Amino acid sequence: MRAAQRRQGRLTKPTGALGRLEELAIRVAGIQQVERPRLGRGEVIVFAADHGVAAYGVSAYPPAVTAQMVRNFLSGGAAVNVLAGALDCALRIVDVGVAGDLPDDPALHRASLGPGTRDMRTGPAMSGAQAECALEVGIQHARAAAAAGATMIVPGEMGIGNTTAAAAIGCALTGRPPEELVGRGTGVDDAGLARKVAAVRAALATNAPRAGDPLDVLAKVGWFEIGAAAGAILGSAVERLPVVLDGFIVGAAALIAARLAPRALAYCFAGHRSAEAGHRVLLAALGLEPLLDLGMRLGEGTGALLATALLRSACRLHDEMATFDEAGVSDRAR
Amino acid sequence: MRAAQRRQGRLTKPTGALGRLEELAIRVAGIQQVERPRLGRGEVIVFAADHGVAAYGVSAYPPAVTAQMVRNFLSGGAAVNVLAGALDCALRIVDVGVAGDLPDDPALHRASLGPGTRDMRTGPAMSGAQAECALEVGIQHARAAAAAGATMIVPGEMGIGNTTAAAAIGCALTGRPPEELVGRGTGVDDAGLARKVAAVRAALATNAPRAGDPLDVLAKVGWFEIGAAAGAILGSAVERLPVVLDGFIVGAAALIAARLAPRALAYCFAGHRSAEAGHRVLLAALGLEPLLDLGMRLGEGTGALLATALLRSACRLHDEMATFDEAGVSDRAR
Repeated sequence: MRAAQRRQGRLTKPTGALGRLEELAIRVAGIQQVERPRLGRGEVIVFAADHGVAAYGVSAYPPAVTAQMVRNFLSGGAAVNVLAGALDCALRIVDVGVAGDLPDDPALHRASLGPGTRDMRTGPAMSGAQAECALEVGIQHARAAAAAGATMIVPGEMGIGNTTAAAAIGCALTGRPPEELVGRGTGVDDAGLARKVAAVRAALATNAPRAGDPLDVLAKVGWFEIGAAAGAILGSAVERLPVVLDGFIVGAAALIAARLAPRALAYCFAGHRSAEAGHRVLLAALGLEPLLDLGMRLGEGTGALLATALLRSACRLHDEMATFDEAGVSDRAR
Repeated sequence: MRAAQRRQGRLTKPTGALGRLEELAIRVAGIQQVERPRLGRGEVIVFAADHGVAAYGVSAYPPAVTAQMVRNFLSGGAAVNVLAGALDCALRIVDVGVAGDLPDDPALHRASLGPGTRDMRTGPAMSGAQAECALEVGIQHARAAAAAGATMIVPGEMGIGNTTAAAAIGCALTGRPPEELVGRGTGVDDAGLARKVAAVRAALATNAPRAGDPLDVLAKVGWFEIGAAAGAILGSAVERLPVVLDGFIVGAAALIAARLAPRALAYCFAGHRSAEAGHRVLLAALGLEPLLDLGMRLGEGTGALLATALLRSACRLHDEMATFDEAGVSDRAR
């Protein structure tokens, strides 16, 4: 990173004039352990699962939409398909617990931990063993993506109702009240918002997750795809790959990963700030400043995918720009 | 635009979940007059020129750097070269008044209006005829880019000292004081900053540009490359092409264009917010909200080039995503 910092100072531009792109290149240099890092193809891994609490009316969409959207991913019609194609990223779809029927499709990775989590309002969403398995699924898929040549990882998720779980995780790990972390998600009305706050409050009261034990939090109020996304972050760090974080749900996963292994945060870049209000709380807890702020709140990894273009551009500038000496350009008076 | 808005509501995502990308696609639909717009190759046009006032110590770099950087553009080593290559944009370099020697290079478009503008502190920077010619050069190059197949235009600029002219234009057109529009540019120290404020104040006092007459402002305190960039915005609007605006200098050019032809603003997208403090004043005067805010302050069109990826992604999502009906996904309860 020191060598990369020196190189930034020699490129034909005023020092600091590339703003945050300079910091991005220097951080990726540290991750790749080279002075001039390169980023090729990325991979977005979308973990999908269902949830007992979704039937309680915490989403504007019916629970069946989780399986329907997985089909949409497989046939190429979702936002994540379009952006992965536009931004040179492979796409991996992993079923970690979808309740509905899914087609036999070789593109669908099967790692189901059950037909959705249990209703966290009345008991733990999953067992401790399931929570560990969820992490492990994520770790393995990040490592498989690395083995397949991915140079950066974008964890994504799909699960109708999962902003409610992300809010519960955020409350449990930061100590902030449900009102600060619960938002409108896909667009619930005031009554839906009140049901979400009540669901989070009930889940926290029933389960009393221990703030100092992220695995306990994941098991009691987390969901399969959030655990898997947390695992993907850990697996990416093991593989020394940059991880570009999406919005609110992946933010909750990142907080679990960071509490389990704080050094994993060094591999994480906050791709964007979601319109979901609670994301600010999670970003503050992570200590990350988002790259984009476009009012997006779609999930699937879409906001992070847009940010991969910034990381890639930052590395290309760092690698390909001429230095003052090479170009025969006068540096400022020194 | 109404048809595009309806299509956005049928795509497989919660309404509004793509945030500002939805608005981008709808605006490009209006510009292209089609329901499903597409953006192919763009073109960045870098206008370069020198300035009498640059010798007065308003930049951290010597005036010779303008010609040196044009050589760097021609040999492919500057930031704009790297980003144009990374983001599928052609690059056009236009000399509108560089004082130093430039190489014979077929890639360099020659449209010099003189060896730099005159010192605006002691008289008008250029004649009214030169100001009109500067606009005309920009218009013609935008139209040539359109004829060559460009689907969006990124006006860029290079001219050591030109943040001082942009500040003077901003003051003349908005009525705000020099202290609000003058910044550190390439990185001047406190003494340099004071010289910049003094230069702008002197230029305004000497020339008394008329706020209601943008051509008068351009002639008296504007510079060749700023006039050409303003012309490129007008030419792009004539060709019905989206224009992605870079930072502070191009912001001043956009304000001239908008005051000359207010409807040209409908074709403009603010690519990013520059770290140069006065850019906020210009963006407010333009009524545009920037897409990126990465602390960049390099010019050349670089911040805008990064934003072209957002426009392109927005259009691809709009065009390629499946609708609820096509994908068999349940829309929210209606």
